[in-house]
Amino acid sequence: MSVDGYIARRDGSIDWLSTVEREGEDYGYKRFIDTVDTVVLGRNTYDSVLGFEAWPFLGKRVVVLTHRPASARHGEKFFSGKPEALLEQLGKSGAKHVYIDGGTAIRGFLATGFVDHLTISVVPLVLGSGIPLFAEGISERSLVLEESRAFSTGLMQLRYRIGSRAKERKAVASTAATPRGSVPRR
Amino acid sequence: MSVDGYIARRDGSIDWLSTVEREGEDYGYKRFIDTVDTVVLGRNTYDSVLGFEAWPFLGKRVVVLTHRPASARHGEKFFSGKPEALLEQLGKSGAKHVYIDGGTAIRGFLATGFVDHLTISVVPLVLGSGIPLFAEGISERSLVLEESRAFSTGLMQLRYRIGSRAKERKAVASTAATPRGSVPRR
Repeated sequence: MSVDGYIARRDGSIDWLSTVEREGEDYGYKRFIDTVDTVVLGRNTYDSVLGFEAWPFLGKRVVVLTHRPASARHGEKFFSGKPEALLEQLGKSGAKHVYIDGGTAIRGFLATGFVDHLTISVVPLVLGSGIPLFAEGISERSLVLEESRAFSTGLMQLRYRIGSRAKERKAVASTAATPRGSVPRR
Repeated sequence: MSVDGYIARRDGSIDWLSTVEREGEDYGYKRFIDTVDTVVLGRNTYDSVLGFEAWPFLGKRVVVLTHRPASARHGEKFFSGKPEALLEQLGKSGAKHVYIDGGTAIRGFLATGFVDHLTISVVPLVLGSGIPLFAEGISERSLVLEESRAFSTGLMQLRYRIGSRAKERKAVASTAATPRGSVPRR
């Protein structure tokens, strides 16, 4: 996200990410994505990814959150229910490490209390306006800073473990089969 | 600020900052404030500071931005004009290093293009709602990450140098007497 908390311009464009693009520097993305078996994408993020030269999630189970019609091009599935229901399904079918991407998707999953890591990459830029990563209405949560890394481009990567909300601790414990989600953000 | 960008709860309370309070750890505040000769406070921040046990800006010139009536208790001055006008006055009267605090004040001064450093302390907490540090309408700016420091409490301090907006570079150069401002944030 930008220093002021945006993940895209108002029109969805992410051209400003090019300010931290460097040949040979993926900011740990490959190492991370290799640990992921399931990718959950918001619809807008999915539509962006479809425009990439190559499908970046080859060999992974991909679920796209959408209420609008869509047809799979790379074996992806579409889902229009609640995050909790999806996580239960994924857990039953063996998912271990779920990666969630897209602003609305991230906010929805953060609200469930089942996401246990949040990786934020802060791009050294004030955008001034755009689509925010966070929005009002997520419950208060304490985080534990597990790792921080400053890159030579000025990108700052912060990895947090997310504490459970007190009232949810029982629910989390009773759904141990549910895969825990991670939310890396470029 | 919190990870989701708030500097206070909706009612202005900053009780959540206590999660990173540690005996003997001031996160570099004293070292920083000793370099500052002039403090500019927003009215809400000023009103909070008045509730502190001791006036924390003894020996410094303090200017409070407000349109509402107020009477000085510690030699502070009140100002209701534009940030640019205040910076010009301060520059003429010898101010060298101005520290700006308070959400509205920070946003107003960031918009002028005369602030050259931004220090953000990210508290490991998602608040969910509150008063944001940034707001829509600040112009796009590139930043340079000059320093980052992770503390054992999980507080992450990021110090950025702020680039000028291209169209303002001439104005900045022609007002070299104007003091440059710094904006540390707890």
